[in-house]
Amino acid sequence: MIRYPNGMTYYGNKKRKKHLTSTELSISSANRGMELEHLINQSNEYYQLKHICLVKKRPVPINVLKVDYTKGARITQAFFEEKSTTDYNGLYKSKYLDFEAKSTQNSTAFPLNNITKHQIEHLKEVILQNGIAFFIIQFKAHEKIFFVEAKDVIDFISKNNRKSIPYDFFVKNCEEIKLTYNPYLDYIKIVDKKYF
Amino acid sequence: MIRYPNGMTYYGNKKRKKHLTSTELSISSANRGMELEHLINQSNEYYQLKHICLVKKRPVPINVLKVDYTKGARITQAFFEEKSTTDYNGLYKSKYLDFEAKSTQNSTAFPLNNITKHQIEHLKEVILQNGIAFFIIQFKAHEKIFFVEAKDVIDFISKNNRKSIPYDFFVKNCEEIKLTYNPYLDYIKIVDKKYF
Repeated sequence: MIRYPNGMTYYGNKKRKKHLTSTELSISSANRGMELEHLINQSNEYYQLKHICLVKKRPVPINVLKVDYTKGARITQAFFEEKSTTDYNGLYKSKYLDFEAKSTQNSTAFPLNNITKHQIEHLKEVILQNGIAFFIIQFKAHEKIFFVEAKDVIDFISKNNRKSIPYDFFVKNCEEIKLTYNPYLDYIKIVDKKYF
Repeated sequence: MIRYPNGMTYYGNKKRKKHLTSTELSISSANRGMELEHLINQSNEYYQLKHICLVKKRPVPINVLKVDYTKGARITQAFFEEKSTTDYNGLYKSKYLDFEAKSTQNSTAFPLNNITKHQIEHLKEVILQNGIAFFIIQFKAHEKIFFVEAKDVIDFISKNNRKSIPYDFFVKNCEEIKLTYNPYLDYIKIVDKKYF
């Protein structure tokens, strides 16, 4: 049995593949909610603990203007900078991987203004260098989370003059990441299948 | 000829291999100084422009406590968090690479309190996952910059009960990264030789 720093408990591999209903999960995650970021961070902690892969969330870039050193380096003036990259990167079996996680309340389509031009450029560069680039996209209305290869999003944008990607596109073309106990989102299983 | 966003100009590959004296470099870098971070960032910009590799500096992790939204999300209270990882990561030829850059004024040894336990643990994990892990260490007194494999630092720490690594260790065991025009620090050449 493994106790996680976040208070979760791991009871061994047997339960790993069990798919959870959202009710089970929201009970088990004890009011920390179904936030996508939380699900991914828990998964990354699990992966690191089991030495499966090493993926970290990039800190939000902040431009610090004023620091008060009289009380131990307290920042008193700063601004959020625009992100030029993605949320997460890391390595799996020596390969570089890089992804952005996005959640939408929209039930019919994923609005493309969720993704910045900088992020698309960054992911194109990752693909050019033979890295593994993808999105994890959650449709809250459908309680579904998809593993979406970055190349598919880039192709869609270049071929369609649309401001959103229809929900059906994900259903037809992308693998669903079902919720499990440990990790919550076993996205590396899909990485393994698609890229190794 | 390539003009960099930072005002530098690139005149083609012929000059790439020229080694600079520190005087030449400080003239060419027009008072931006010889700061190690600046040298590495310029190199990474060059690499990205030429699609050689994709390496980014991780933002400093900051814990934001208060934000004033009356003037467009101005952060009014925040603290620096302790870094749990390294300064830079990215990919080269599909592989994940990860490194920390450190500079010392000390002429006889590199003080190990420059590196946190978290960073060592992180680099051990990178090595375990077959990533490429190293340090770029600058001795200002000697005007020398070394490419130091993380495993060598980890070995040194485990075998020696010392608070610093003698300068001679670097001279004997590590490759020097000589200053060149473009990029300033061609560390990928060494990565290529050692790991590919």
